[in-house]
Amino acid sequence: MNDRRRRLAHALQELGYDAFLLTQRPNQLYFTPVEEFSSLPPVPFVLIHGDETLVVPGAWFYHMVKEWLSGCTIAETPVRGDNPETALITEIRRRGLKRVAVDYQTQPLHTALARELPAVSVVEDTHLGPELRRIKEPGEIERMRRAAAVSDLGIEAAFRAAAVGVSNRDIAAEASYAMLKAGAEIVSLQVCSGPGTYSVASETWQYQPQRVLQENDMLLVDMGIYVNGYLGDQTRTAIIGEGTLQQKAIVETVQRAYRATRDAMRPGANAQELYAITVEILRERGWEQYFPHHISHGLGLGGDLPRVAADSNDVLQAGDTLSCEPGVYIPGVGGARFENMIHITPDGAEELTRSPLSPVVGS
Amino acid sequence: MNDRRRRLAHALQELGYDAFLLTQRPNQLYFTPVEEFSSLPPVPFVLIHGDETLVVPGAWFYHMVKEWLSGCTIAETPVRGDNPETALITEIRRRGLKRVAVDYQTQPLHTALARELPAVSVVEDTHLGPELRRIKEPGEIERMRRAAAVSDLGIEAAFRAAAVGVSNRDIAAEASYAMLKAGAEIVSLQVCSGPGTYSVASETWQYQPQRVLQENDMLLVDMGIYVNGYLGDQTRTAIIGEGTLQQKAIVETVQRAYRATRDAMRPGANAQELYAITVEILRERGWEQYFPHHISHGLGLGGDLPRVAADSNDVLQAGDTLSCEPGVYIPGVGGARFENMIHITPDGAEELTRSPLSPVVGS
Repeated sequence: MNDRRRRLAHALQELGYDAFLLTQRPNQLYFTPVEEFSSLPPVPFVLIHGDETLVVPGAWFYHMVKEWLSGCTIAETPVRGDNPETALITEIRRRGLKRVAVDYQTQPLHTALARELPAVSVVEDTHLGPELRRIKEPGEIERMRRAAAVSDLGIEAAFRAAAVGVSNRDIAAEASYAMLKAGAEIVSLQVCSGPGTYSVASETWQYQPQRVLQENDMLLVDMGIYVNGYLGDQTRTAIIGEGTLQQKAIVETVQRAYRATRDAMRPGANAQELYAITVEILRERGWEQYFPHHISHGLGLGGDLPRVAADSNDVLQAGDTLSCEPGVYIPGVGGARFENMIHITPDGAEELTRSPLSPVVGS
Repeated sequence: MNDRRRRLAHALQELGYDAFLLTQRPNQLYFTPVEEFSSLPPVPFVLIHGDETLVVPGAWFYHMVKEWLSGCTIAETPVRGDNPETALITEIRRRGLKRVAVDYQTQPLHTALARELPAVSVVEDTHLGPELRRIKEPGEIERMRRAAAVSDLGIEAAFRAAAVGVSNRDIAAEASYAMLKAGAEIVSLQVCSGPGTYSVASETWQYQPQRVLQENDMLLVDMGIYVNGYLGDQTRTAIIGEGTLQQKAIVETVQRAYRATRDAMRPGANAQELYAITVEILRERGWEQYFPHHISHGLGLGGDLPRVAADSNDVLQAGDTLSCEPGVYIPGVGGARFENMIHITPDGAEELTRSPLSPVVGS
């Protein structure tokens, strides 16, 4: 039993669970013994019960999982076999489990488990996985350095392509290409320019892809990429051309907030004190109302801790990895965000991303 | 009132609704009077009530929506103003609505509406939007031709890059770049090779991005792109090198199923008869069990009708646009899918995508 599984077994015992049902890929990747992330296809269920790892693959990954995954029990779900949910229920019943934690359950899964296994207490625990995955192992830090390096290449490519007359879409094309070629398996980019930069709080929308850069635009590039399963995340903002005094003040102020907040990130620092550092710097300008989001989310396989935000009380620990990403978005003017990937060492914040805070614009 | 809104008003009257609450972007885009798709940011709510279009933007798009959207009422939701849900409830109350259709509601929205507006009957109707958007206008067909042409460029770029030693990720880089440069605003690609091609039924996972092409691999490239808001969708499969007799038979059989099914697509054809054409051709080989999915989904702004599948009774109409995408995926061997975008004219199926069914491999 490796260290991850030992810590999990201890936690399950402490909380009184017989087993842990994993539906979320980050948890599956972390606790299933796999060589590398791509040897675990996206399966509906992994059930961890003592030493055993039961994988319920479903028809489409059944043969792949059978062939590639060693050290796991594989539920029989070939084409025209049981569907994964039925197989899971059979396996839970067969093991006589009484109290099962699940990392997330959809309404249909909840209904099916309650109907078919009325004597089994199934408890959703969304916190357990992220908590156990929180402190990163040295091997994970190395993977995150690689993801950070790929994100550096994307930021460089994006701003190198930036010039008056170039579309947000063109910039996305250059950055995506650079990162996919360098090893990213998934690339999601947000390229915003001009008034659109004040709308970046919407994380899922690459706003106005057809918009063409104009003199005195602000250009904001944010990303979420995965490299060998680990998140790479970085944001830079630049002014195209000379810019107004107000635009320059936005950039300067957010960079200052970033540096001050990063410098305070060390073991024992708490979310409220870190959040206050950014807010205080923005307040000097009267801009605190234009900073609507978190300062930090955790980094790793996805959905990680800790969180630094107005509503968080997390306290940083050595081995944490998290973003640091203050921003200001003023309607009608534009917005800026600067974001790096941070590793908390006993001595303080180490930046995993290495791009200069003010990117080089144009080639 | 334009034709779309006239048809909607008629439907609402027939079904006894006072208003239609839109949370889904395809419906918002279709029924909100906008110049082009990018002038409507992703807003939480649009409420259509007679001639009026009420947009509830929320803080992050409030100023943009105020500036750009004409002919709409804009709910006051600036930074530090009401949140969108509260504003929506106020506006429904103010208009004295009694029976409101909603295209989709999350559990929190459902709970809030039931609590704050107990006298208002809110009915989820997921079908109304897709039904009214189903028959495409000539202007929409032109947009879809453009999306199809961009997808042709992506397929060409993908297979031109294919060679022994090239990774799935490299192929994705070339295809993404070609399509983003040609006008795609969003690109989602699935590049599978070797044994992975039998796992394409999982639509959200670009399997094994780091895998490198080997002699006698099957290579499958599928995509979902958006061009000016409209979906482009195409799949091709090719054998790298000579291939085995069985691989060649898979490709030939799926292409034959594609052609036969496409040729039967005309106004009045029903889903069961079309589905049976593909299944019958696969059954001759004993492969019907390896075809697990639909033949067709509708095309357009997203979530469109009609559907051709084992469980569908849709009947094709002139003006429909839909995919035609039979596939066979044999565990341990590989899989193939061929997919084109089809426009149903009074005379039959017109292919909007124009790439050759057997793509040119290598440069």
